[in-house]
Amino acid sequence: MKVRASAPGKAILFGEHAVVYGKPAIAVAVDKRARVTIKEGTNDNTEVKIPKLDIDAVINHETGLVTRVNGSQLEPCKFDAGIMEYIQVALSQLGTPLDGLKVEVDLEIPIGAGLGSSAAITVATLAAAARYTQEEMTLETLAHTAHQVELQVQGAASPLDTTVSTKGGFVYFTREKGALKIKPALEMPLVVGYTSQPGNTGALVEGVRQLREAHPTIVNPILEVMEDLTNQARESIIQGEEKEVGELMNINQGLLDALGVNTDELSRLVYRARHAGALGSKLTGAGGGGSIIAYCPGKTREVLEELESIENAFQVGISSQGVTW
Amino acid sequence: MKVRASAPGKAILFGEHAVVYGKPAIAVAVDKRARVTIKEGTNDNTEVKIPKLDIDAVINHETGLVTRVNGSQLEPCKFDAGIMEYIQVALSQLGTPLDGLKVEVDLEIPIGAGLGSSAAITVATLAAAARYTQEEMTLETLAHTAHQVELQVQGAASPLDTTVSTKGGFVYFTREKGALKIKPALEMPLVVGYTSQPGNTGALVEGVRQLREAHPTIVNPILEVMEDLTNQARESIIQGEEKEVGELMNINQGLLDALGVNTDELSRLVYRARHAGALGSKLTGAGGGGSIIAYCPGKTREVLEELESIENAFQVGISSQGVTW
Repeated sequence: MKVRASAPGKAILFGEHAVVYGKPAIAVAVDKRARVTIKEGTNDNTEVKIPKLDIDAVINHETGLVTRVNGSQLEPCKFDAGIMEYIQVALSQLGTPLDGLKVEVDLEIPIGAGLGSSAAITVATLAAAARYTQEEMTLETLAHTAHQVELQVQGAASPLDTTVSTKGGFVYFTREKGALKIKPALEMPLVVGYTSQPGNTGALVEGVRQLREAHPTIVNPILEVMEDLTNQARESIIQGEEKEVGELMNINQGLLDALGVNTDELSRLVYRARHAGALGSKLTGAGGGGSIIAYCPGKTREVLEELESIENAFQVGISSQGVTW
Repeated sequence: MKVRASAPGKAILFGEHAVVYGKPAIAVAVDKRARVTIKEGTNDNTEVKIPKLDIDAVINHETGLVTRVNGSQLEPCKFDAGIMEYIQVALSQLGTPLDGLKVEVDLEIPIGAGLGSSAAITVATLAAAARYTQEEMTLETLAHTAHQVELQVQGAASPLDTTVSTKGGFVYFTREKGALKIKPALEMPLVVGYTSQPGNTGALVEGVRQLREAHPTIVNPILEVMEDLTNQARESIIQGEEKEVGELMNINQGLLDALGVNTDELSRLVYRARHAGALGSKLTGAGGGGSIIAYCPGKTREVLEELESIENAFQVGISSQGVTW
């Protein structure tokens, strides 16, 4: 038997970091996906191939140890070992023990760019595994289980990434109420520019926590402004107010800079995108590296060319489709 | 008779733009000055020399027209015509008509860099003229008259620059209560980095006004955060808390970015200064070009070298001395 599932990456449009303090965030699923194929293997071990990351590894069914097919060890601190851990933990979540598989991951999402590649791989792996074992799973359960996987691997994780990756489209998210879908009245052509340096999410979240502790009467009001801004952005997205959405992104970028998560490189990409005609541009995700997103109706080509001249860049559309299985 | 007067330039540490909306700002007089010498001329016209700006001009005592000594016209839209206007209007403020002078301005402050060169020239010219005519003038009257000159030349002007230039030192300023001196418990070694592009103050203030009108529920709270931040900075300066002063500068920078007055170039200088060891760095003045200031106790040389490798930069100290006459 051979089964397939896929799940999209995500970009946070508004409210990153504030979401850690119970404020809302708006995220979108993007049309770059992780596609996972599972079929029966030739022995009891499970082989995992991720051609894009040059990974061809084997999970030993008795010890759980992961080795490369060529015999070399995966580096535990490197991304390839990390991504294998998501897959390994995801495969262990099913009611039925899962061994002796051939898993192949076709990855369109750049890794370490703040675009939710690990959540997309986790959701798609879980979904394919559920298909393979013919286990019934609701979208809610899938999103919840994927979040548990991220928690187990990362120690801490917001359910935002796994929720968006499962449900697709525009999502308005609060810790208290979870994910609510938004019906946008505008197209959302985005250009992503990404620095070669991934940000360290844990360290960045900790930095904001310390700044808030040192200056509560300044940082708390900034988080409240972010909340109001995200709520206004939601209205503007629903009403189709392009200019407002762009302006709110730009203000959000400054507030993230005030929280200390911006960098020289991100700022450069942000300003170059605006000069090239973006209505709004900001870092997306944790910052400290990673990516910016530029909202550029009618100017996608110009912004893409401008960002490509300095760093990696590509265009993304919004995907209304979440997980497919 | 030959008289001399001098007045310092200034740098805004906290609260620029917010000050337009009645919020406080903190500014310091810097140890770069405008020095004005006035003596009797050889005919009824007044000759003005500003060697640093390559100005050697004559004000006709009957028509008020300004021409270069070599006969060519000053460009009305260029800075040299502008600076002549401050001098001409300043000389007209005295009780006694002032003609037939030789005025020489020795200028240490770079022009168009947000460091208050026009206010320093105005204050020093007024002070020298008062000495020349032996007119009694209190510091209050001098600061007030200098502000009137700036208003007449620029159309709009905050009294902050002329106040700091007159009084020297650290000044906490609100529109309502005017200037209050602060007694700092710390040294304030600053490095100024300035872009070759001067910002257009009028356009930048207008931009913030429009953003506030479009998003009052977001921009007004940002201005309130700036107010709290400036008040905390005042306490930290008085208490000598170096790290806090730096952190507050960095937050202020992000908030100014959120108001849309930051630029690619300014951001680059700001981040480079921090990388080189500055505790805090931010744009100073209206933004959109002009200068950044970096607060770098123990790291002045490193920050200076780093900024000099990209743009113009120099070190400034705080001048406790305002106008001297």
